[in-house]
Amino acid sequence: MNKFLVFQSDFGLVDGAVSAMEGVAYSVDKDLKISHVTHDITQFNIFEGSYRLFQTVEYWPVGTVFVSVVDPGVGSDRTSIVAKTRDGQYIVTPNNGTLTHLAKHVGIEEIRMIEESINRRQNTQHSYTFHGRDVYAYTGARLASGEITFEQVGEKLPIENVVSLDLFETIKTDTSLTGQIDILDVRFGSLWTSISFEDFKELGFKFGDKVEVSIFNNDTMVFSNRVIYGKSFADVRVGMPVLYMNSVYHMALAINQGSFSKAYNIGVGAPWTITFEKQ
Amino acid sequence: MNKFLVFQSDFGLVDGAVSAMEGVAYSVDKDLKISHVTHDITQFNIFEGSYRLFQTVEYWPVGTVFVSVVDPGVGSDRTSIVAKTRDGQYIVTPNNGTLTHLAKHVGIEEIRMIEESINRRQNTQHSYTFHGRDVYAYTGARLASGEITFEQVGEKLPIENVVSLDLFETIKTDTSLTGQIDILDVRFGSLWTSISFEDFKELGFKFGDKVEVSIFNNDTMVFSNRVIYGKSFADVRVGMPVLYMNSVYHMALAINQGSFSKAYNIGVGAPWTITFEKQ
Amino acid sequence: MNKFLVFQSDFGLVDGAVSAMEGVAYSVDKDLKISHVTHDITQFNIFEGSYRLFQTVEYWPVGTVFVSVVDPGVGSDRTSIVAKTRDGQYIVTPNNGTLTHLAKHVGIEEIRMIEESINRRQNTQHSYTFHGRDVYAYTGARLASGEITFEQVGEKLPIENVVSLDLFETIKTDTSLTGQIDILDVRFGSLWTSISFEDFKELGFKFGDKVEVSIFNNDTMVFSNRVIYGKSFADVRVGMPVLYMNSVYHMALAINQGSFSKAYNIGVGAPWTITFEKQ
Repeated sequence: MNKFLVFQSDFGLVDGAVSAMEGVAYSVDKDLKISHVTHDITQFNIFEGSYRLFQTVEYWPVGTVFVSVVDPGVGSDRTSIVAKTRDGQYIVTPNNGTLTHLAKHVGIEEIRMIEESINRRQNTQHSYTFHGRDVYAYTGARLASGEITFEQVGEKLPIENVVSLDLFETIKTDTSLTGQIDILDVRFGSLWTSISFEDFKELGFKFGDKVEVSIFNNDTMVFSNRVIYGKSFADVRVGMPVLYMNSVYHMALAINQGSFSKAYNIGVGAPWTITFEKQ
Repeated sequence: MNKFLVFQSDFGLVDGAVSAMEGVAYSVDKDLKISHVTHDITQFNIFEGSYRLFQTVEYWPVGTVFVSVVDPGVGSDRTSIVAKTRDGQYIVTPNNGTLTHLAKHVGIEEIRMIEESINRRQNTQHSYTFHGRDVYAYTGARLASGEITFEQVGEKLPIENVVSLDLFETIKTDTSLTGQIDILDVRFGSLWTSISFEDFKELGFKFGDKVEVSIFNNDTMVFSNRVIYGKSFADVRVGMPVLYMNSVYHMALAINQGSFSKAYNIGVGAPWTITFEKQ
Repeated sequence: MNKFLVFQSDFGLVDGAVSAMEGVAYSVDKDLKISHVTHDITQFNIFEGSYRLFQTVEYWPVGTVFVSVVDPGVGSDRTSIVAKTRDGQYIVTPNNGTLTHLAKHVGIEEIRMIEESINRRQNTQHSYTFHGRDVYAYTGARLASGEITFEQVGEKLPIENVVSLDLFETIKTDTSLTGQIDILDVRFGSLWTSISFEDFKELGFKFGDKVEVSIFNNDTMVFSNRVIYGKSFADVRVGMPVLYMNSVYHMALAINQGSFSKAYNIGVGAPWTITFEKQ
């Protein structure tokens, strides 16, 4: 282990919850290096938590331990696990779908159930609502510090036990691709789609070409226009839309120096589909 | 000292204030380990600052130095102090009530006045509005690094000099408890009350029992219903209210995967009282 | 170099972008000490990014490397540079105006163009939209760690090549000063003006004196009143306005425990001018 411990949650940073988790971790090992993906995951939104891990985990040194707590079922009988990815990172998390994108795009090598009789802060058996502090931060810290090995987390579970959310499978024709708006590049309002660059390039577009783009909210069309395929935002004039490959190698739509999601009131998730078409 | 220096303030993270404080501290000692409780304390809200310290301080290694700056009186003659808690933590703060909860729940062992002629960055005598940077971060860093001892902070003051805010004393009858809504678990909208689990358990409820809960805004009743006492949110169906012991061992009210405070428009502080009753 | 690496951007902390940048940097050198000015710079607002650097850079140890990414032109042919300030700090940034305030108030000693063929993460040549991760964080980390020297960043450019935004020059008469509202002390709504304390003190006011203050939105007067010149907020009663020298030695207007900008609906930038007058 490399002493890096990276937290993510839907707790926000407005109260002391995250700092209590840090304190617990540093109490395990003062030499840990604690950092944060974000604590502004939309409350209870496991898909978003899964996506943000996909967006960041691979950029960290091998052996980094992530603790991700988006846990609507805290206190229920959902299990707590540590997963080891194919790339050698560790994710401490409730087994509720947080590993969906990593399982698909990176691969999970092994999972182990957190044995709470060992891997729980002392004298917290009667605290039922803050496993982030009492179990996850504590276990993550012990793993990151080398105080326990991955094997000592607890019993190995069959890899099929990883809970995965359903992901939209891209629908392909010879001249079109249909996917889902997965998530926003929040600050800039760009739409990140489920359509990979791998699939998109088969349509044969070159930079500067125009792509027929349609966006639907369930059955209602909310956007339909030809959009330039560019390398980056600056390939179109300020205020104009652009289709581009985003930083995780999927197709995305932005307005140069504007917000695509605000301009057309577009959201994310199952009801929001998008089609790219070659004419 | 253990080199841990933890900041809290109502400055927000939108401008450069907190980073300037970090820079000052690292200029004292490059090996400090700086972290943050939150910088989103509601502006000027000393009660909230006090509560967030209570929620986090005990989870940090002994000897950690906290710098808490919620300081509506900056530039007035309010004194600046460093307090040592019974548990061996240090709090650098204006003496304006920030220590209220720690004084009550942990205990303050000793306080010392910050002698500004020594414990102030050089050449800042004419800067009157940013003591967070010029006095508190600087003094906290010197203490956390071991450059000065607690005694060298300045003159010892009588412990009675600690300014404390009035806290609501729980009103008890044989079958009821009345307290105040102290604060929110902000991201989830749960109500954290001033009623301790110690007091609550004397009413003799078991998990699964229903408790008669009434909430008042001054004299106006804003909620009155029987609520299940559960271990955690998942003990009730999604969308249902639940009464539970929170992570600081006080009684709290939540809606499973919803927001209690938004659902019933409930705020915090003196006007907001709550009663638990056994029937 | 001192291993300190400080990030600033307009990316927000809601998604994984900043954490990916941290991961890239730690992958260069695990012993870096990463910190943040803010990631809440208003989107595309280069002036604000420039101001926040001015507000913080000087408080950090000499040799600190800052990475500032407010980059509306990402993917265009705007150049990427590293600047060395007169005080011996380094700023990694697109050359788009981010250095304006440091150039004026501190001085830029030398700039070098980032030679992307060397200073770019491997296998990211086809990623055009996240130079913050692929070029700036990577180059900043290599410089902060000592893996490359300043000279190895790339070719030295003429110092005149630094792009600077136009700053408002204070208009002086014998009895008045006119400047611009540059920026807010965001959390408290105080107005920070472009008028320096150096200039203000020539008007000869003493603490407690009243200053005639007028604020205009283009040609429309939006505030006109006599305001007490105080050391700090607490020099006036709660709810009253006060004129004071802020923490970066410029003149500012606040309401004690209120928000001046909200009270009078006042914004920042070119349309917003302010006059101080002695009568």
